[in-house]
Amino acid sequence: LSDSRTARLTPSFIEMLQARWAKGKFVCVGLDPVYEKLPDHYRSGEYSRDGAIESFCERIVDATSDEVCAFKPNSAFSERLGWRGVRALEHVCAHIRTRAPEVPIILDVKRGDIGTSTEGYAAYAFDQMGAHAATINPYLGQEACQPFLDDPKKGAVVLVRTSNPGASEFQDRPVAAFDEQDVWNPDHLPAEAFPPLYKVVAHQVATKWNGNGNCCVVAGAGATGPDELAEIRKIVGDIPILIPGVGAQGGKIEDVVPVGKDSNGAGFIINLSRSVLYASSDTDFAQAARKEVQRANDEINRVREPIAA
Amino acid sequence: LSDSRTARLTPSFIEMLQARWAKGKFVCVGLDPVYEKLPDHYRSGEYSRDGAIESFCERIVDATSDEVCAFKPNSAFSERLGWRGVRALEHVCAHIRTRAPEVPIILDVKRGDIGTSTEGYAAYAFDQMGAHAATINPYLGQEACQPFLDDPKKGAVVLVRTSNPGASEFQDRPVAAFDEQDVWNPDHLPAEAFPPLYKVVAHQVATKWNGNGNCCVVAGAGATGPDELAEIRKIVGDIPILIPGVGAQGGKIEDVVPVGKDSNGAGFIINLSRSVLYASSDTDFAQAARKEVQRANDEINRVREPIAA
Repeated sequence: LSDSRTARLTPSFIEMLQARWAKGKFVCVGLDPVYEKLPDHYRSGEYSRDGAIESFCERIVDATSDEVCAFKPNSAFSERLGWRGVRALEHVCAHIRTRAPEVPIILDVKRGDIGTSTEGYAAYAFDQMGAHAATINPYLGQEACQPFLDDPKKGAVVLVRTSNPGASEFQDRPVAAFDEQDVWNPDHLPAEAFPPLYKVVAHQVATKWNGNGNCCVVAGAGATGPDELAEIRKIVGDIPILIPGVGAQGGKIEDVVPVGKDSNGAGFIINLSRSVLYASSDTDFAQAARKEVQRANDEINRVREPIAA
Repeated sequence: LSDSRTARLTPSFIEMLQARWAKGKFVCVGLDPVYEKLPDHYRSGEYSRDGAIESFCERIVDATSDEVCAFKPNSAFSERLGWRGVRALEHVCAHIRTRAPEVPIILDVKRGDIGTSTEGYAAYAFDQMGAHAATINPYLGQEACQPFLDDPKKGAVVLVRTSNPGASEFQDRPVAAFDEQDVWNPDHLPAEAFPPLYKVVAHQVATKWNGNGNCCVVAGAGATGPDELAEIRKIVGDIPILIPGVGAQGGKIEDVVPVGKDSNGAGFIINLSRSVLYASSDTDFAQAARKEVQRANDEINRVREPIAA
C-alpha cells in the first residue's frame, strides 16, 4: 500500500471512538500516575520514579485495553518528573499504540498558546507522543487553537466546563448576548440574554470550531452535579463529550449518562482515574483495575438505554 | 548558613525583577528557538536538533544576560522535540541560573489544570526547571491555579489579554455585571455594566489572586494596539505586566511603555523574541542579539519618563 493509501485507510480519532462505543465500551482510563500512590513493589528501590510510573501505566494498559474506549495520559504527572518523566510518557504512548492500536490516546495536556507555540504543542501531542487527540484550553480563541483543529483525523478536545470547585469563577459568569454598542450579537445563544461563559464556549465549538468534524468537549460532572453537562449536550448536538469527575470527584454514572449521551445513546467518554489505578495497592493492581473498568462499564450500559439498534 | 536562613535571604521573583528595573533593564528575551531558523552552522550536521537549540539559547543568554530583566523560555519549542527537547530546556534553565543568577526565569508554559495535575505542572516549572515564575491560564479559576500562587517567592504570571488576532473571541466578550438573578455582583468592575471578560480576569487577579503579592499579568500589545494594556494597568495598579507583541507582532515601544508603566515608571516587562534571536543569521548572532536588546532597552528608557527618583 502506498503511504497516501495507508493514510486514507487510517481511521480518524472520532471513528476509533465510534468503533469502541459500538462494542459497548464507554470508560476511558485516565493515566495519572502518582509515584507515592503506586503499589509498594514499585517503590522498593528496584525502579526509578520514571521507570515505576512507566511500568505501572503499561500494566494498567495491558489489563484494561479491551474494556476501554480510550486512554487519557495526563502530561502533568510525567512532566513533574522532568525529562525522564516525559520519556516515560512517550514510552507509555508507544506501548498503547503497539498493544492496543484500536484504542485512541487522548493526551490530556490542556494546552493553549498562539502561533508557532501552539504548533509546537500540537507536534508534542501528535508527532512525539503519537496521540490521536489532545485536550486544549479555549481562552485564547479558535485562531490560536488551529494547529489542533487542522487535521480531521486528530481530535481536539476543548475544555468547556471543568469539574473543579473553583470552575465557576469565570466559566459561569453571565455573558451579555448583546455587545458594547447594545447590538444583538448572533454569536450568542439565541434563547438566552445572559448565558454563562461555558455555554458560549460550547456554542462556538459546535458552530465554528468543528468545521473538520473532529472536536469533542469536556464537561465535568463533579460536585456540582450533571446540570452543566445536560446544558452542554443540548448545545453541542452529537459532538462527543469527555466527562471527568465521575468516581473520586463525586459524579455518579446514573446521573451523568442519561443526560450526557447523544441521540444514538453513545457519544460520551466517562473518564475514570483514581478509582481504576488504585483499585488495589497490592501486586494484583492490574486485575483489580480491569474489574473496576468492567464494573463501571456494565453500570453505564445498564443506564444508557440506547436507542434501538 | 542554615537552609532556612538561606531561604529567607533568597530574593523573590518580584524582588529580582525590581532589582533589574532599578538598573534600567526592561527587556525580557523570549527563548523560542525554532531549529529551522537557527544560524546555518547549527544545522550543518554537527548538532542534534535538541543540542542545537540548547547551544543557541545558551549563547543568547551569555550575550544578553546583563542587559535583560528576565528570560522567558517557552516550553512549546522544547516539547515539540520530545523528551530530548525537554532535557535541553532543563539545561538552558540551569545555565541561566549559573551564569546569570540575578536574572529571573519566567517559564512560559501557559498551563491550566486542576488538583494534583496543577501541582505536577508547578513542580515541572519550579522544581525541575528551577524557574522563578511561570505563565498560567485563568480559565479554570483561582482555586485550580493555587499551586502556582502558594509560594510568595515564585511568580504567577496570569494570561489576561493575549495579542493574537483571535483573542477577542472570548476575552473581549461583555460580561454582565449582574448575575442570572439580576442581582448586582460586587465581583464585577464597579464602573462598568458590561466589562469585557479580560477586565474581569484582571480585576480578579488584582483583588483576589494576589494575596501573596506574587502575581503578574500578561497584556499583549499586538495588532490591536495598546488600548487593552492601558485598561489593564488601570485595573491592576502596580502589579507587574508582561507585555508580549512588541516587534515582530506589531506593537511599538513608544505606544506601549507610556500606558504600561506603573506609578514608579517601572513595573513592566517588554518581551522580545524573534527580533532578538534572529537579529543575525550568521555566526555573529549572539552579538547581534545583544545589540538589539540594548537598542530596545535604550528606546524604552527614552520614552518611559520615570517619576523622579
